[in-house]
Amino acid sequence: MKILVLGGDGYLGWPTALHLSEHGHEVAVADNFARRHYDDELGVESLVPIEPLRARIAVWKELTGSRIGCYIGDLTDALFTYRMIGDFRPDAVVHFAEQRAAPYSMIDRGHAVYTQHNNVLGTLNLLYAIAEIDPSVHLVKLGTMGEYGTPNIDIEEGWLDIEHNGRRDRVMYPKRPGSFYHLSKVHDTHNIEFACRIWDLRATDLNQGVVYGQQTPETSRDERLATRFDYDAVFGTVLNRFVIQAVIGHPLTVYGSGGQTRGLIDIRDTVRCIQIACENPANRGEFRVFNQMTESMSVREIADTVARAFPGDVTIENLENPRVEAPEHYYNVRHTKLVELGLEPHLLSDTLIESLFEITKRYAHRVRPEALRPTVNWRTPASG
Amino acid sequence: MKILVLGGDGYLGWPTALHLSEHGHEVAVADNFARRHYDDELGVESLVPIEPLRARIAVWKELTGSRIGCYIGDLTDALFTYRMIGDFRPDAVVHFAEQRAAPYSMIDRGHAVYTQHNNVLGTLNLLYAIAEIDPSVHLVKLGTMGEYGTPNIDIEEGWLDIEHNGRRDRVMYPKRPGSFYHLSKVHDTHNIEFACRIWDLRATDLNQGVVYGQQTPETSRDERLATRFDYDAVFGTVLNRFVIQAVIGHPLTVYGSGGQTRGLIDIRDTVRCIQIACENPANRGEFRVFNQMTESMSVREIADTVARAFPGDVTIENLENPRVEAPEHYYNVRHTKLVELGLEPHLLSDTLIESLFEITKRYAHRVRPEALRPTVNWRTPASG
Repeated sequence: MKILVLGGDGYLGWPTALHLSEHGHEVAVADNFARRHYDDELGVESLVPIEPLRARIAVWKELTGSRIGCYIGDLTDALFTYRMIGDFRPDAVVHFAEQRAAPYSMIDRGHAVYTQHNNVLGTLNLLYAIAEIDPSVHLVKLGTMGEYGTPNIDIEEGWLDIEHNGRRDRVMYPKRPGSFYHLSKVHDTHNIEFACRIWDLRATDLNQGVVYGQQTPETSRDERLATRFDYDAVFGTVLNRFVIQAVIGHPLTVYGSGGQTRGLIDIRDTVRCIQIACENPANRGEFRVFNQMTESMSVREIADTVARAFPGDVTIENLENPRVEAPEHYYNVRHTKLVELGLEPHLLSDTLIESLFEITKRYAHRVRPEALRPTVNWRTPASG
Repeated sequence: MKILVLGGDGYLGWPTALHLSEHGHEVAVADNFARRHYDDELGVESLVPIEPLRARIAVWKELTGSRIGCYIGDLTDALFTYRMIGDFRPDAVVHFAEQRAAPYSMIDRGHAVYTQHNNVLGTLNLLYAIAEIDPSVHLVKLGTMGEYGTPNIDIEEGWLDIEHNGRRDRVMYPKRPGSFYHLSKVHDTHNIEFACRIWDLRATDLNQGVVYGQQTPETSRDERLATRFDYDAVFGTVLNRFVIQAVIGHPLTVYGSGGQTRGLIDIRDTVRCIQIACENPANRGEFRVFNQMTESMSVREIADTVARAFPGDVTIENLENPRVEAPEHYYNVRHTKLVELGLEPHLLSDTLIESLFEITKRYAHRVRPEALRPTVNWRTPASG
């Protein structure tokens, strides 16, 4: 099928585009290079050097003969969005094209407004473009497990069957997220559900856990196909950051006591989940939610796991938690729908972590250690 | 106390400002005149002529000796918002400054994006300004009963105590609203609840029903103090629109069978509810929700009530419903918190409706009948 990957230059968008191309789909990517601009702004780069988008598309063509189309533009530019959908005429649109870091959204007012503007209004343009041009397009949208927050009840997949005062209904699962970024995803969820209801669109919302790992079978074919590997306190996801800290002899920075629990997923499972969602589309009018994670661990357990796997001394440092979140909480998540459709999860293993140690050692000279420590505090509202 | 009324030039913002001033508060209003611009855009005006904002502020001063401060600007302009909060230093901010019409938000892509941009990002700037300048400010925010949609269970006041798989929690009441406008209020709700949680702000979210009526004790003192009275299919609320249709001999335009049910409130109760909320502030860190409505009626019942009260012939015309909504549904809303704080509701009566007939007759020559019929259709996504 024809699949358009929005945010196709990013950490997960790029490996997803390759994976879909490898599995016989006709793929195009779109990007506005916002993620590369954040690097300039924050003064930090991917640990692993990445090629320009067009260069890596050319490498993929050279190695496999498969062509990946390329659109450069911004979803908040409605005309660009309409023209892209009208030109490529996808069967499915995979939507990674959002600002994805909670700390980035909490830097100050300007970054909070930017995040909600970019994510919510860009997606709104996309919904209109699909509805007007071809309402049969399947939207595969990246949400986040962080949308749910940490309720004291089991987390279901997007919807909740409830009984209240003797009556029953199936409702949108109540959300109470922990940053203006996570809130932007909640806003998207509500907008997309409504679009499915009024325009008979079809959408799959993938509430993804924290992704770890850096290589997929496709990206590891050639170092010029590498995807980003972020280690900084703003964009680095927790496990990846701990691996890098271990390698460079920096303490693993656990926020608070580390009792806060996260859903996790291996990058190889991410690309497979997207493939599964595309190849098994939602029905017309259906707003479907999958929890895209394979296991849960507390931050402390993640740190201990990395420390155990590392062949050398590792210290763990408990920093005051810059986020506002429950230090210990119930966390029981249903995540069966992707498995029912064929996902065979890679659970976190020492082998995976060891491979990350190798990558990290090779590029350790590129680490700016000061970028590992959190500078964004949830409790301090700042203008700007 | 010092109270800043945002959107103080609008249908409800203006009578609220007068009511608060009358009851001894030091009031300032802020407006960007967006509502007057929508009139220009849509080619329709308030049935009752309204004075320029500064002129009616001068009339109020002349009649009562009370001064109302005035800020002209836009909440999406962060610098304006910060300067206004820093200059006036309110105890409470009453926030009416949002695009408030569901049909307006559904005109096309541009109006949907405008509505969510204006409402959500303006409110985000306001939250930052309060958090940075004075986190003790009580935010009194206008939400809408439309945020809830029409669940098959009782509608509670913002929060829901649930039991699921043997565990309990108090969660945000699940929302499933029916337009991009209503969605913007849901997004606000989530953003404000988060701001209360991380910055210890205090907020009251007033989920208001459909307001009817045009006069309050304060606005009726002088015709130059009149507030807007909208009758068009975009901005006219349902009961007000039916009254005007009855007077000019136009059929009452019921969408579908009219089985859809709305929460209603008299404009005199609206201004009193705002006063009650301001004078009984939420606690620091508290996100409090009141359902600001006093009774429920189906659209068919509202039409029948207007027809019964009108001294002459009235016909009712059932149009194809331009909205996507359940034609018949369960609707049982808890709305006790404002009553517990002292609200004495005015229920819909023939007297009220008769007073509206009088106002309407006086200005019936200003009606553009073609503006009474719906032109915005929920099912048709349009660019623009």
